[in-house]
Amino acid sequence: MNAITTHHQFLRSGGDATLPRLLKPSPLCRPSFAVRMSLREDAPSLAVVGVTGAVGQEFLSVLSDRSFPYRSIKMLASKRSAGKRITFEGNEYVVEELMPESFNGVDIALFSAGGSISKQFGPIAVDSGSIVVDNSSAFRMDEKVPLVIPEVNPEAMAHIKLGSGKGALIANPNCSTIICLMAATPLHRRAKVLRMVVSTYQAASGAGAAAMEELEQQTREVLEGKQPTCNIFKQQYAFNLFSHNAPVLSNGYNEEEMKLVKETRKIWNDMNVKVTATCIRVPVMRAHAESVNLQFEMPIDEDTARDILKNAPGVVVIDDRAANHFPTPLEVSNKDDVAVGRIRSDVSQDGNYGLDIFVCGDQIRKGAALNAVQIAEMLL
Amino acid sequence: MNAITTHHQFLRSGGDATLPRLLKPSPLCRPSFAVRMSLREDAPSLAVVGVTGAVGQEFLSVLSDRSFPYRSIKMLASKRSAGKRITFEGNEYVVEELMPESFNGVDIALFSAGGSISKQFGPIAVDSGSIVVDNSSAFRMDEKVPLVIPEVNPEAMAHIKLGSGKGALIANPNCSTIICLMAATPLHRRAKVLRMVVSTYQAASGAGAAAMEELEQQTREVLEGKQPTCNIFKQQYAFNLFSHNAPVLSNGYNEEEMKLVKETRKIWNDMNVKVTATCIRVPVMRAHAESVNLQFEMPIDEDTARDILKNAPGVVVIDDRAANHFPTPLEVSNKDDVAVGRIRSDVSQDGNYGLDIFVCGDQIRKGAALNAVQIAEMLL
Repeated sequence: MNAITTHHQFLRSGGDATLPRLLKPSPLCRPSFAVRMSLREDAPSLAVVGVTGAVGQEFLSVLSDRSFPYRSIKMLASKRSAGKRITFEGNEYVVEELMPESFNGVDIALFSAGGSISKQFGPIAVDSGSIVVDNSSAFRMDEKVPLVIPEVNPEAMAHIKLGSGKGALIANPNCSTIICLMAATPLHRRAKVLRMVVSTYQAASGAGAAAMEELEQQTREVLEGKQPTCNIFKQQYAFNLFSHNAPVLSNGYNEEEMKLVKETRKIWNDMNVKVTATCIRVPVMRAHAESVNLQFEMPIDEDTARDILKNAPGVVVIDDRAANHFPTPLEVSNKDDVAVGRIRSDVSQDGNYGLDIFVCGDQIRKGAALNAVQIAEMLL
Repeated sequence: MNAITTHHQFLRSGGDATLPRLLKPSPLCRPSFAVRMSLREDAPSLAVVGVTGAVGQEFLSVLSDRSFPYRSIKMLASKRSAGKRITFEGNEYVVEELMPESFNGVDIALFSAGGSISKQFGPIAVDSGSIVVDNSSAFRMDEKVPLVIPEVNPEAMAHIKLGSGKGALIANPNCSTIICLMAATPLHRRAKVLRMVVSTYQAASGAGAAAMEELEQQTREVLEGKQPTCNIFKQQYAFNLFSHNAPVLSNGYNEEEMKLVKETRKIWNDMNVKVTATCIRVPVMRAHAESVNLQFEMPIDEDTARDILKNAPGVVVIDDRAANHFPTPLEVSNKDDVAVGRIRSDVSQDGNYGLDIFVCGDQIRKGAALNAVQIAEMLL
């Protein structure tokens, strides 16, 4: 892919006016929120919680892109955003303040408003009979709540039925976990992963639209010889990188890293898989990259691995050694598929018991909004 | 360290007018090439090959900073740069075109002009009786040529004596190897590293001053909504990252990765140590970061590891979990020490047989020029 295309891709976005300049739609941008036939009487009623945020806006993009059928859709956000107007698929909606009553008559509620909002309003929505797909970490490790990547473990939510009148919670995994497991799972199914060493290269978007704006602003300031403004992050982000800003736990891992460790075990339903991770924030806007070293129980050679990944749903292989063309964050930005490349037998392991791979995925899309909407689609 | 200091650090440089704007000296910059007492009749005669490049300029900075004694110093470069004037420690020098005769009377020659120049002129310099410290990869794996990190394996060059009239070659390891082994070696000495999994976050400087300029120019272009200019790299670098641009070998590893694998074995004189690496170029100017997972033969707990690293020469520990303050490329830019943090027992390994660490080092300084000058100092 040439630099021009990638550059325009980089500029594409869900189209929220509150998103940073760098992410505004470009002339090449797909039409957002085009008028579709997905407004139907027999379809479920939806609610989007945190609709003005980066992921909330991407929820709308993905619902529209995939012609997700709905009877009605409620745009919910904090009091601060209430009253804002959003045009979605040809209709104008007024953003409503999130209230306990907000979920009356709502069949499916997509949450992305942070863990505390999910903890407070998730159970209320469930009591109102809504099926909640929650993008926060609030319920991910709750053993009664399925943690689902549709391509990986759809069976975990098989017992949850739309229209049963019974509310339920389904958790969306952390973005780094989703992107890593989209590539690792097909290989795990073939040769069983015993141990995984992950190093991440995480985009600003994981910290929200404000973090993306801060990266852009800081970069402008540094280029102008000014001191960079540090609001979201306490240190310079432009032309720099740093250990992920999540709190560091007593074992020295930060919460982001332990999500990869624990969520992998739950999603694979394998309490024995060994995972270690080092999570780093890099000055990239909206797609994560991950360097993943895999140790297997059974031998698997790199050609077999490549074939398996080429046939894996939601995965695209970009692995052109001659052209030195491999996945990059820009190339997967605003894309649904997770890209995998640098697929090679690990020279530090004997036989074919090890592989190194490099994975890139759009953090806002497959890492959050797309995966959540795919979960909702499985309910239809 | 606050953002302001880091920002100014970021702006500091060896002071070459050909370096990108972002790297020009700032008001806080140490005085480069100040008048020193290091010009002495009894000192060796020096030559700097590739003196107008990023590393060549840093050679001069480091020689001056460390008051390296010299009787005379020849500034050598390609025909293109010949005739340029360089003021060094109060004296003006004219850059001379590199010729076979350039090494007559030269005791120590510091080379950083690329592998082909080293292959062509290195042996000529040796025949002229010069001791060559070569920053290229040309002779690193030549078993007759010591590959040296002074803090790690000084014994490898013990047989090479200045003033013996006998020329010799000493190779400077690859930047990623130096930065990794500065931190891994003290732990290796205590508990013996069996296997190392490295993922790098490499700065533009590794591809030279022009790559640093391209990153700056592309970033300006992207911020202005323009298409980024791709000359040095074939894809967008600004707000992106990509697999290292070194050629990819038949085993799927690129040359940069195999340097880490092979140079580690040679420097540690341990043909059994298992190393795998994934090398990634990130949009950072002049310092590399590396995520390193270590497996040991003997148990070593994280507190012991931290104490060992705190006492290791050329290493500084930045490991403040409460403040979430760990090494960053900006914080080590223009610094001599390699910074280590995120020191923790690996949760994916039983007992205390594994550690994860995160390392940052200035690619131009300890990764190249400083290490070479330290090698030269051992000859005095």
